[in-house]
Amino acid sequence: MAKEKKLVEAITSMDVDFAQWYTDVVKKAELVDYTSVKGCMVIKPAGYAIWENIQRELDRRFKETGVENVYLPMFIPESLLQKEKDHVEGFAPEVAWVTHGGSEPLQERMCVRPTSETLFCDFYANEIQSYRDLPKVYNQWCSVVRWEKTTRPFLRSREFLWQEGHTAHASAQEAEERTIQMLNVYADFCEEVLAIPVIKGQKTDKEKFAGALATYTIESLMHDGKALQSGTSHNFGDGFAKAFGIQFTDKDNTLKYVHQTSWGMTTRMIGAIIMVHGDDSGLVLPPRIAPTQVMVIPIAQHKEGVLEKAREVKDRLAASFRVKLDASDKSPGWKFSEQEMKGIPVRIELGPKDIEAGQAVLVRRDTREKLVVSLDELQEKLSGLLETMQKDMLERARAHRDAHVYDAHNYDEFVETVNGKPGFIRGMWCGDQACEDKIKEDTAATSRCIPFDQEEIAGTCVCCGKPARKLVYWGRAY
Amino acid sequence: MAKEKKLVEAITSMDVDFAQWYTDVVKKAELVDYTSVKGCMVIKPAGYAIWENIQRELDRRFKETGVENVYLPMFIPESLLQKEKDHVEGFAPEVAWVTHGGSEPLQERMCVRPTSETLFCDFYANEIQSYRDLPKVYNQWCSVVRWEKTTRPFLRSREFLWQEGHTAHASAQEAEERTIQMLNVYADFCEEVLAIPVIKGQKTDKEKFAGALATYTIESLMHDGKALQSGTSHNFGDGFAKAFGIQFTDKDNTLKYVHQTSWGMTTRMIGAIIMVHGDDSGLVLPPRIAPTQVMVIPIAQHKEGVLEKAREVKDRLAASFRVKLDASDKSPGWKFSEQEMKGIPVRIELGPKDIEAGQAVLVRRDTREKLVVSLDELQEKLSGLLETMQKDMLERARAHRDAHVYDAHNYDEFVETVNGKPGFIRGMWCGDQACEDKIKEDTAATSRCIPFDQEEIAGTCVCCGKPARKLVYWGRAY
Repeated sequence: MAKEKKLVEAITSMDVDFAQWYTDVVKKAELVDYTSVKGCMVIKPAGYAIWENIQRELDRRFKETGVENVYLPMFIPESLLQKEKDHVEGFAPEVAWVTHGGSEPLQERMCVRPTSETLFCDFYANEIQSYRDLPKVYNQWCSVVRWEKTTRPFLRSREFLWQEGHTAHASAQEAEERTIQMLNVYADFCEEVLAIPVIKGQKTDKEKFAGALATYTIESLMHDGKALQSGTSHNFGDGFAKAFGIQFTDKDNTLKYVHQTSWGMTTRMIGAIIMVHGDDSGLVLPPRIAPTQVMVIPIAQHKEGVLEKAREVKDRLAASFRVKLDASDKSPGWKFSEQEMKGIPVRIELGPKDIEAGQAVLVRRDTREKLVVSLDELQEKLSGLLETMQKDMLERARAHRDAHVYDAHNYDEFVETVNGKPGFIRGMWCGDQACEDKIKEDTAATSRCIPFDQEEIAGTCVCCGKPARKLVYWGRAY
Repeated sequence: MAKEKKLVEAITSMDVDFAQWYTDVVKKAELVDYTSVKGCMVIKPAGYAIWENIQRELDRRFKETGVENVYLPMFIPESLLQKEKDHVEGFAPEVAWVTHGGSEPLQERMCVRPTSETLFCDFYANEIQSYRDLPKVYNQWCSVVRWEKTTRPFLRSREFLWQEGHTAHASAQEAEERTIQMLNVYADFCEEVLAIPVIKGQKTDKEKFAGALATYTIESLMHDGKALQSGTSHNFGDGFAKAFGIQFTDKDNTLKYVHQTSWGMTTRMIGAIIMVHGDDSGLVLPPRIAPTQVMVIPIAQHKEGVLEKAREVKDRLAASFRVKLDASDKSPGWKFSEQEMKGIPVRIELGPKDIEAGQAVLVRRDTREKLVVSLDELQEKLSGLLETMQKDMLERARAHRDAHVYDAHNYDEFVETVNGKPGFIRGMWCGDQACEDKIKEDTAATSRCIPFDQEEIAGTCVCCGKPARKLVYWGRAY
């Protein structure tokens, strides 16, 4: 028993030290490993398989809205990065610079893309001549680099994987509609696939993307009460178009600037899955995103017929589910711990007595509830169980989130809540950046978003007390 | 008619100038575009969709052999790159160096990966302790950078997309078997999916990968008679393992070094598709790799019922094929030219008379053969036509390749053939690198491979006349 418990004992309880719990889980669930390359990580098979499922699900949803995939260079010449003033100010301090090709110094240094607005603009300036060339609705899957000082696996690393969509439209209205459309794609994906409820809203000017007219965001809440920006969608208006000269001849034969958007989601969503659903036994993966949904674990597998039956069950289920069989020589208890650590949604225990009785034991990862099921009904019951679990996980995450949203009507209440009750704090805001700055300075909380669902919970700014009309979600964030 | 012909007239005939024809096709078929980033390209939707299909087909084949996907950093610290002597000599002259992060110089400069052997070795040195940790059969899909002086879209660019598999095994035999297994995966993929016949063989020591014990290759022949290295698979033995200290405790309780392999295929295969199958009307895509397999083109679409019927046909076929409808306001002739330029395997012409007769006209892209088909049988006939076309394209490519393989028995014959008959030249080789050097110096031809299918076409080296046992394929190559 001592040996069997070791795997689970190796991780810190989340109530004792959430940060350490997180680090333990990413390591023990074999999602990532550290490398000799400072601030960068290796995404191991169990982690990368989650990303592949995220890619597949998002890519399908993108394409249903008319998105086409492309690939642009990873390098941005310095002069190109500098064409849009706000953008270069936002990104130049955190880029990696390439100065030499082979043994020769470059005539102009280039950065490794931190994001590709400037490259897409340069590309679009060539591609777009007429209204017939519009809209352009392109996306790329790639890695980007931002030279962060402090890094954490998935949440903040110097290189990370993402998709970045970049679109160009004939009208401001169409650009705004696309911006909101993609935010909704992200929100639906998070809720339906990752079982993570999100709050949709707009970023304040202080928090918006460098060079954007408006940034929309989905914000989620982690188990420890900290917020995570989970996806953003930006409307650039014609600011980049003017900086890069992206014009088209419209139907009325006049030259006009295009209106642009961009939107991205990253590998940090794997961090969100861990921190929303995980527990002290490790990872808990929502069935729709789990690379392995079901692990068949034979009991007393040395006994005649057990392994054969387990294999038969696994093969039968493989047509409908992502299922594996653990036929290794480890003990069943050890296998249970591993399956739990890795967050596999359901395990099927199958021993000699079960086989004799024509049944199997199904155990849910999230609640550990056991269900004895006749082998004849296995497929149907399993399908129902995975659906139920997916739904329950979203509801549980929503209940946890809702239980950690607090209203603050004045500054004392605000500060007390930030310090005493981790979660989202709803507070009115006058619109002045000075108040955002003061709140961040005093409490380390930032404005997460101005939610689309507005409510007037008070008449005055939670910080300065002046008249205020906008409700804002505040919180400490990853 | 003048307008309708413009699209096709815009490309140079391949017999007049093959290089210009290639450049015209990649541009006019909208596969790539040039960028402000010298030596790098934009892969546009039509090009990237081919790469997505290559990825899906290869990835499925990889996973069937037990491959798992991972992601490693894009940067390699200089000290890591230098650990294996031959490897650093091979790659250091052509890497891009990152020297600054933000405004600060790095303590140690890093290159952007030209290939990731050193990173995988560094990773494996941590991951592998026991025979239980073996084999490791990992792959990653990513982009790599090699600072080339002269570049051509897909064939040679400073950044390109590829997959790189990296494996570690307990025995030399297992490593060799994996090396050959992956070469066979590449060969089967090329023939079955891309309709490109290949010659399998081993690279000479001069041409093998920097740091490898043995490099195996598949070589294909382009329409102009030049060879293209289409995929390579390397057996490293325990050379890298010794340089990086990758040891494991074997079953017999002794410490042993692992044996490693790597293998890769790149976006240059899109160049191969173009140069093997293309013609003077543009691209010709094998049905199995074509992003759009069928284009439905309505004739006289302003007439009542035509567009509706065309849409109905397209919707019905969409369940079984990758099909599109061109309902734009261009003329049918213009649409035909576009469909041909883009290499869409089959077009379906559907006009009022066809609809009245309950039929449609199918036109094959490769032979332009027309087939009048009853609408009731459309699905079945189309399916057969695509299969036939796939098969015919492979056979035609094979016949072309076979018609351009020449035997040379002495040096005069060799030089005359290289200069007069573009293609593969089979010639015996003594095994001395001096002969390879001389041949390259004199004729610009290189040893493509020592084919697995050996034959003794002469007793002496085609270059120096000394006794020779090895048959080699030679040729000028991309």
